[in-house]
Amino acid sequence: MSSRLPETLTTITLPKGFAAAGLHCGLKANGARDLGLLLADTPTRTAALFTQNTLTGAHIPVCRDHLVRSNGLVRAILVNSRNANCATGEQGIRDAISCCRELAQRIGCPTEQVLMVSTGPIGAPLPTQKIVQHLDQLLAKVSPANGMDFAHAIMTTDTYAKASTATFGDQANAARSTGFTKGSGMIHPNMATMLGFLTTDAQPGADLQTELRLLADQSFHRTTVDGDTSPNDSLFLLASGLSSESSTACQAPMLQVARDLARQLAADGEGASRLITIEVRGARTEAEATQVGRVIATSPLVKTAVAGRDPNWGRILSAAGRAGVAFLTDRARVWVGETEVFQHGVPHPEREAAASEHLRNCESVVLGIDLGVGSAEADIWTCDLTADYVQINADYRT
Amino acid sequence: MSSRLPETLTTITLPKGFAAAGLHCGLKANGARDLGLLLADTPTRTAALFTQNTLTGAHIPVCRDHLVRSNGLVRAILVNSRNANCATGEQGIRDAISCCRELAQRIGCPTEQVLMVSTGPIGAPLPTQKIVQHLDQLLAKVSPANGMDFAHAIMTTDTYAKASTATFGDQANAARSTGFTKGSGMIHPNMATMLGFLTTDAQPGADLQTELRLLADQSFHRTTVDGDTSPNDSLFLLASGLSSESSTACQAPMLQVARDLARQLAADGEGASRLITIEVRGARTEAEATQVGRVIATSPLVKTAVAGRDPNWGRILSAAGRAGVAFLTDRARVWVGETEVFQHGVPHPEREAAASEHLRNCESVVLGIDLGVGSAEADIWTCDLTADYVQINADYRT
Repeated sequence: MSSRLPETLTTITLPKGFAAAGLHCGLKANGARDLGLLLADTPTRTAALFTQNTLTGAHIPVCRDHLVRSNGLVRAILVNSRNANCATGEQGIRDAISCCRELAQRIGCPTEQVLMVSTGPIGAPLPTQKIVQHLDQLLAKVSPANGMDFAHAIMTTDTYAKASTATFGDQANAARSTGFTKGSGMIHPNMATMLGFLTTDAQPGADLQTELRLLADQSFHRTTVDGDTSPNDSLFLLASGLSSESSTACQAPMLQVARDLARQLAADGEGASRLITIEVRGARTEAEATQVGRVIATSPLVKTAVAGRDPNWGRILSAAGRAGVAFLTDRARVWVGETEVFQHGVPHPEREAAASEHLRNCESVVLGIDLGVGSAEADIWTCDLTADYVQINADYRT
Repeated sequence: MSSRLPETLTTITLPKGFAAAGLHCGLKANGARDLGLLLADTPTRTAALFTQNTLTGAHIPVCRDHLVRSNGLVRAILVNSRNANCATGEQGIRDAISCCRELAQRIGCPTEQVLMVSTGPIGAPLPTQKIVQHLDQLLAKVSPANGMDFAHAIMTTDTYAKASTATFGDQANAARSTGFTKGSGMIHPNMATMLGFLTTDAQPGADLQTELRLLADQSFHRTTVDGDTSPNDSLFLLASGLSSESSTACQAPMLQVARDLARQLAADGEGASRLITIEVRGARTEAEATQVGRVIATSPLVKTAVAGRDPNWGRILSAAGRAGVAFLTDRARVWVGETEVFQHGVPHPEREAAASEHLRNCESVVLGIDLGVGSAEADIWTCDLTADYVQINADYRT
């Protein structure tokens, strides 16, 4: 009986060298936090991945430009929710830069050491005045203890704030990694799938950008909610190197945090009632396992079946069958929870009651397939497709 | 104010050389027709396309084998609904062949001149006895006037029977093309998307198989409901050549029928309340236009927006942006109905009321995008994604 959602965090510890804040600056109608700040004590090595969508939010070219000009050194990331600053033309670019400049002046650093990130509905001009007017107040709130304020400030349709932390090494010198993310529609791999902010005081490796890419491949790129990528998706990794522990930035604790956040994204997919882990086994290569897992994870028929608590092995097999990966149905095995419902080319209808029970009783469910052609494997995370997803997305702007 | 659904047909004319029938043989619980027959007067040239899914219904290898052994000459196609005869192992193959043999004996032709096609839920053995016991009665009902009985017999979750007919040439010698199809979930291009049966008395060209493929590329392959392909998807083209009109099988009237059927499939997608035509213009190539159209047509966010009557140009642009086709957002134009809602990189919020009205008032709606990089174009058909789609597919087996 596993739960879909993690224990709700009330506080989270940031790694050495980082502090955070979040407040309401007037963008969200309900008065919730909508402006967040991640602050580094000194210019800090930073890697970033951005959406591959042709349509991009204004913050993306600005971030790219600032990272090049600052040689990848960042003092602050300012994030607003409830406005994506996307499809806002040249004015949007100027607005993003202007927010960076205002913050840079206040903390005493070059403009290019500040990044600006926006998320929310697209097409409306960024209300820069509301943001700039709250910068002093935001800076006054900055503290290593205020990570959860930042986590709340970046939320859009998320139902809970997403943060995760892990340590590595002995207690006194332990290196810490802490991450934040937000979803919860338009979630699909192919960089990027969301906003994600990963911080660590472990030592950055020689090529932080490659480390981040490998990290994302094992975590955020294995999560999908609806196959739609957003114009604003961005993932950042900041490494202060202040821990004396010798682990590098992207070792175990960071991967654990990133995978935890990726699962949280899927679990909190719009309208979701079930976190689904697609276990693909017996593939020729990890790439083929991932491909099959993604096709199953994006199949509306598989996802509605889980919403209906129906252990529909046929839809799983059928989705796998259109993934462009060669395998023989007769050698494949399909399981739901721990119950094998299809093997040797035929189903086991007598076992479906047990499989249904798994779907009914567990909020975190497993759909598995063994392709029977090799020994490579991959897990992919997604959620069920419910009538609530349709409702949320039919009514989002109205 | 255009309607999503065509006028319901009560009769349909078959081309010279064809007759049809349909009856209830005991598969559908509600007593509706579930066994159909398409009969040709003589062995008739036939081409076929089948699903590219790795998982295939038992009828597909049997059809392939029969078409090879009969040299593409077919006397009859027997179709049952409410059972896909899929994931039924070796027994499924034997069952399909046995139905063909029983029918062949009754009409006096070699077994391989009979094809068998199944559609419905997968995994249960084909109730061959119910089918065979009704063959005599089915043959007694065969008539050129009973096409709509056949159209009803092949339905699964379709809400209406889908048929279309067109003629070519002067009235006395006109060549006729008549087609039938059924959906309505698991509808996606990439051959095949459904069951489709196209008949014509026009002259078959030298390469009927290539003609059918070209025809499908312009029609059925441009329709998508949910991106899920079925293990049983099959499309047949039978050409009797009995008309004295000199047009070939796949010219204008056949294409008109095929496109009409493809639109009907989209219009009757599970849970659909709107037929959506995605107009892609200004692409470099037709292939790129089709690719962009398909990505827009399968985007859950675009489809839920239409369900919510929201002229969400951002989701259209964003879906186009992840199609892997190069274009500049700043040069793109987006329209909803006849209202341009995005151009020169920025939206026109003041025009959205008119666009909403189009979505509210018309059952057949248009979403358009001009990529601004060429002059190629394509139309793709799909439907909105409603809470009813989720309901239907969550509850289908239970």
